Amino acid sequence: MTKIKASIIGGSGYAGGELIRLLLFHPKVEIQQVTSRRYLNEPIGLVHPNLRGLSQLTFTSIDKLQPADVIFIALPNGNSMAIFSKVKPLARKIIDLGADFRLNQANLWQTWYRQEHQRPDLLTKFVYGLPEVNRQAIRQADWLACGGCEAMVSILTLYPVIKQGLIETDDIIIDAKMSSSQVGSQPSWSSHHPERSGVVRSYKPTGHRHTAEIEEQLSVFSHRQVKVSVSATSLDMVRGILVTIHTKPKRTLTDKDVWQAYRQVYSKEPFIRIIKQSRGLYRYPEPKILQGSNYCDIGFELDKHNNRLVLIGAIDNLMKGTAGTAVQSLNIMFGFDETLGLKFPGLHPV
Amino acid sequence: MTKIKASIIGGSGYAGGELIRLLLFHPKVEIQQVTSRRYLNEPIGLVHPNLRGLSQLTFTSIDKLQPADVIFIALPNGNSMAIFSKVKPLARKIIDLGADFRLNQANLWQTWYRQEHQRPDLLTKFVYGLPEVNRQAIRQADWLACGGCEAMVSILTLYPVIKQGLIETDDIIIDAKMSSSQVGSQPSWSSHHPERSGVVRSYKPTGHRHTAEIEEQLSVFSHRQVKVSVSATSLDMVRGILVTIHTKPKRTLTDKDVWQAYRQVYSKEPFIRIIKQSRGLYRYPEPKILQGSNYCDIGFELDKHNNRLVLIGAIDNLMKGTAGTAVQSLNIMFGFDETLGLKFPGLHPV
Amino acid sequence: MTKIKASIIGGSGYAGGELIRLLLFHPKVEIQQVTSRRYLNEPIGLVHPNLRGLSQLTFTSIDKLQPADVIFIALPNGNSMAIFSKVKPLARKIIDLGADFRLNQANLWQTWYRQEHQRPDLLTKFVYGLPEVNRQAIRQADWLACGGCEAMVSILTLYPVIKQGLIETDDIIIDAKMSSSQVGSQPSWSSHHPERSGVVRSYKPTGHRHTAEIEEQLSVFSHRQVKVSVSATSLDMVRGILVTIHTKPKRTLTDKDVWQAYRQVYSKEPFIRIIKQSRGLYRYPEPKILQGSNYCDIGFELDKHNNRLVLIGAIDNLMKGTAGTAVQSLNIMFGFDETLGLKFPGLHPV
Amino acid sequence: MTKIKASIIGGSGYAGGELIRLLLFHPKVEIQQVTSRRYLNEPIGLVHPNLRGLSQLTFTSIDKLQPADVIFIALPNGNSMAIFSKVKPLARKIIDLGADFRLNQANLWQTWYRQEHQRPDLLTKFVYGLPEVNRQAIRQADWLACGGCEAMVSILTLYPVIKQGLIETDDIIIDAKMSSSQVGSQPSWSSHHPERSGVVRSYKPTGHRHTAEIEEQLSVFSHRQVKVSVSATSLDMVRGILVTIHTKPKRTLTDKDVWQAYRQVYSKEPFIRIIKQSRGLYRYPEPKILQGSNYCDIGFELDKHNNRLVLIGAIDNLMKGTAGTAVQSLNIMFGFDETLGLKFPGLHPV
Repeated sequence: MTKIKASIIGGSGYAGGELIRLLLFHPKVEIQQVTSRRYLNEPIGLVHPNLRGLSQLTFTSIDKLQPADVIFIALPNGNSMAIFSKVKPLARKIIDLGADFRLNQANLWQTWYRQEHQRPDLLTKFVYGLPEVNRQAIRQADWLACGGCEAMVSILTLYPVIKQGLIETDDIIIDAKMSSSQVGSQPSWSSHHPERSGVVRSYKPTGHRHTAEIEEQLSVFSHRQVKVSVSATSLDMVRGILVTIHTKPKRTLTDKDVWQAYRQVYSKEPFIRIIKQSRGLYRYPEPKILQGSNYCDIGFELDKHNNRLVLIGAIDNLMKGTAGTAVQSLNIMFGFDETLGLKFPGLHPV
Repeated sequence: MTKIKASIIGGSGYAGGELIRLLLFHPKVEIQQVTSRRYLNEPIGLVHPNLRGLSQLTFTSIDKLQPADVIFIALPNGNSMAIFSKVKPLARKIIDLGADFRLNQANLWQTWYRQEHQRPDLLTKFVYGLPEVNRQAIRQADWLACGGCEAMVSILTLYPVIKQGLIETDDIIIDAKMSSSQVGSQPSWSSHHPERSGVVRSYKPTGHRHTAEIEEQLSVFSHRQVKVSVSATSLDMVRGILVTIHTKPKRTLTDKDVWQAYRQVYSKEPFIRIIKQSRGLYRYPEPKILQGSNYCDIGFELDKHNNRLVLIGAIDNLMKGTAGTAVQSLNIMFGFDETLGLKFPGLHPV
Repeated sequence: MTKIKASIIGGSGYAGGELIRLLLFHPKVEIQQVTSRRYLNEPIGLVHPNLRGLSQLTFTSIDKLQPADVIFIALPNGNSMAIFSKVKPLARKIIDLGADFRLNQANLWQTWYRQEHQRPDLLTKFVYGLPEVNRQAIRQADWLACGGCEAMVSILTLYPVIKQGLIETDDIIIDAKMSSSQVGSQPSWSSHHPERSGVVRSYKPTGHRHTAEIEEQLSVFSHRQVKVSVSATSLDMVRGILVTIHTKPKRTLTDKDVWQAYRQVYSKEPFIRIIKQSRGLYRYPEPKILQGSNYCDIGFELDKHNNRLVLIGAIDNLMKGTAGTAVQSLNIMFGFDETLGLKFPGLHPV
Repeated sequence: MTKIKASIIGGSGYAGGELIRLLLFHPKVEIQQVTSRRYLNEPIGLVHPNLRGLSQLTFTSIDKLQPADVIFIALPNGNSMAIFSKVKPLARKIIDLGADFRLNQANLWQTWYRQEHQRPDLLTKFVYGLPEVNRQAIRQADWLACGGCEAMVSILTLYPVIKQGLIETDDIIIDAKMSSSQVGSQPSWSSHHPERSGVVRSYKPTGHRHTAEIEEQLSVFSHRQVKVSVSATSLDMVRGILVTIHTKPKRTLTDKDVWQAYRQVYSKEPFIRIIKQSRGLYRYPEPKILQGSNYCDIGFELDKHNNRLVLIGAIDNLMKGTAGTAVQSLNIMFGFDETLGLKFPGLHPV
């Protein structure tokens, strides 16, 4: 069986490392090249110690990239647009894991990312890479912009209840609990262990960048004008996101109404589980048991006291939130079984 | 200088242990007796290892309690009301750290605690023990019911902005991040380390018991009908609470408006700090640096995008949330300097 | 392709859960039955939340066990010997994950486990299940006793340097750093999160039970009388063991001597990596990146100052330390590729 | 009552911050100036958030230092010797918290710190600041070199059993479990939270710098030639050290022999506790309950199986390991009660 050839630009970061791990075990993909400026010519195991002994790959320069079937770009925000014209001729399919092409509107990008967009012409040519809401477009896409981790778990959690018209779309509060791998592999004062350990740090009580992406996508998909308020709090964990989403029902809802909304939209999704148990310890979604898995677990609870609907979503930010969704999208783009290379279920206890 | 004599009923739990620690170093209090059924006759250091070498106290039986100037009750919910008639003759001042006498209305208690209240006659005779909002009443109180930890930090964070009429009082969402010491010292499946470590566990997405207390107190103090929705998530930390409170301003607010509301109410409070910095790592309240301290740190951020006001409050649940406030109240009740025995500022880094 | 049928006795514990996870994804094994007394008739996902949605299995009673190709026993120490005669007729191959049949000498067992051995007649009929030192015997074994997690990582780390005669065998100090999943799934005061979190707890400074197993196995394999002193310290982690082994070289050694000893013995082992790097963060074995993997990583450092050789070994106690080695042994016993179902490499960062 | 004036050079690091905290609450000391190059003119609360609201101090320049009664130097290794001639005229008492003057022999310093010593002439003029073994000299000292954290807990744990001749002094293995605050406040790749969290990292399996200091001090104090092998492993904790020390008894020892050795030497020490309990969870020293306290807790266990004596010592590295011992020494140097400002007992649970 011939394998497709994939290369990764920016392979020394956390998203890049996760991509390498997934593709090394993917039965239909062969990694051709992985680039890194900082670790040029070093073995990948130097920065991704879990991969030691599994591959002879060393990091190469972006200038030495050869044509491939697909190229992943896993660079800090603002870099993809700068190198895009260089990468474009090398592969028919390009999957960008950064933020550069996630939004459709250049002015929105500039507002939230505080820099001018260098390639506004490309914005509408990239397909937003979230299979559960956009599978058809992904299938035909050449250029894909994977969503932001916090945005994707929020969109996945909200999409069915908005689509089915269960909640008010102008009063949505997303209280996101975040992990340290989301900031990337660059050390800083705020990531210094004695300062970062044990925190419950309100690093973005208002104005989180992913707001734009969530609103844009949910409005497109649901044909409604959606407004969300995102508050982000960093916890002492390396992987995982949990979003607690506070919403206002349009009418009096029952558990059954909400179950139906999710089932209608997600019943055939391989990576969505609705978690709402009356017994056991893991009655709602829990990011710790999703580490390494591609699941997005979703739960909910109705608050009769105040007529609220609380939604809960959890993912591994480096899997379903980044590299996992990227590989899932690759599977769709190349007509593979959508779950190839993504079956690891997560550990317990952990 | 003569010291007052204090006894503690239920001294082997976490609240009891913290009380013992504080009173051992309190210059005007002498601990007379500490009771525990389970650890009868054992040295206190067996269960409170931080106190080894500091005291010769052993646990005694509640049946051997002698008259004292003040008696603290630190028992699981439902126990204080059962023993109150026995304790009442022994001390003029009684400070209850449990939930039994926190609410004024017996029917509310029964709704939220799911058992009948045995002493509804006493409910209005207990003063709610939160000095910042109730100092005058505490000064004259004989019987005090300390608030719940999650309730007190929420009340302290909300009180000034409600009092000054800045926010809508029927649309308040409290997203509480909780720690493991709040459930007490009794092991269970859910507290088993492999299951509890690393969690971001939505243990009470709706319907948290403290809702009743928060609503009752804020309505009394502010002369407004207040409704709150509490969502509680347990984190992998032993001490501390952070509440992220999502509120809707009544009108367009500026930072200055909010600062003023807090300053007006709290400018002379020894244990309240308003934390809102534009630089540094600890720009908002952070529970980890409050461990052992009696501070309630409060911060806020206005969300112009959606006209929201996000409030942030942090405490050590065993200090300001329980034993610290109890000692602060004792200081008020006996006319001592309010900060006596409560000056430890917390550690950094930690 | 026909699959072999496997059943698991004691499937609700942590070792049992890990076995189920591995076998659910094993291409040549079908899980037939899983027993649990406590969770009879419950779905396996109630206690193993990572497996929700992956299987329709429910726990059954040991009394309803049907014949299978292989039966795993994952019960607390002392239980396997009690039920062995009942299990024996049901499968030709039996793999015990408990301690009952690990030692060859009944008196040793009684000394270290403080109870009489009920089936001393079976002790020499069980093969010790550590493929790297015992592969040939495993291939022909019907009954297998998997080693203890702490014992196996110690044996694997010491075996080559003892075999090659590099160190004194009567002066070996094993300083083991342990995790909370090793004590099993039963809650207790010592596993209560507020007490267990953040500990560096010397729970067994001397006299760890695995001493017997390490000494017995190393003496058998190396044809030398080996004596070890095990000190065990519990850390705030759920999975993983690191052993720091302090040894005394018989003669002046170079790095090359030690490398050679390991290479000679382990060069073809699929699950052993020698980790000794001069650069990077993960210069020595590190349990955190082994979570979910079947690797045993081994490193070393010579201390010229005092003529010491420090060896370092790391595993995931539930994988290479329990269920992973059990499945590796199953692969050997049934003639499968030894790495089947065991290829997950671990995560980074995590 | 007049207070002495103290200044701190290097007040923005972790040791400096802890010193400030202790001195702010010390009844006989007033902080005069605190220097920091990086945070010049900033309020101390910017880097030490636990001190916000407690002091109006801002960081000043070392060039503006005024005469004081005592000056603390809390600078990275190699800096004290460079500035000493500048500091010397400003205060009669100088307490250095760095490594520059801890050793008596310049060649040893150069061997272990890999740089030439700039002021070998001063080495024997500094007194080693460990009150329990050196109180008399400290009382008369003008210049004090506080010991290293890992060295001091090792020395305190070993000193009595060596002094009483219980163990062989050429076969001592110190297996040290370390925390992240020991590396200081400078971020790096190795302190980056995703890499540092969850580690059991053998960062110095052999050749730890404190070896020299431990050997030199123990040899001086005990009049024996002592050799130690230090292995250091970093854990996921911010504060605290635990040393597990593996020693060889000279003769068959009983528990009583060891108890007596410790009692004889430490019975009147205010900050040493011998912890060896047969019941409870905290049967041996445990660093987590020492956070913020000045105790050094010491325990032991005899290994009859192999005739070993395992010693266990625990401290808070920033307290007894640095700032706490510095303040204890100041109390001795100025004739104050030795426990002034050092009475905080630590928290539980935490």
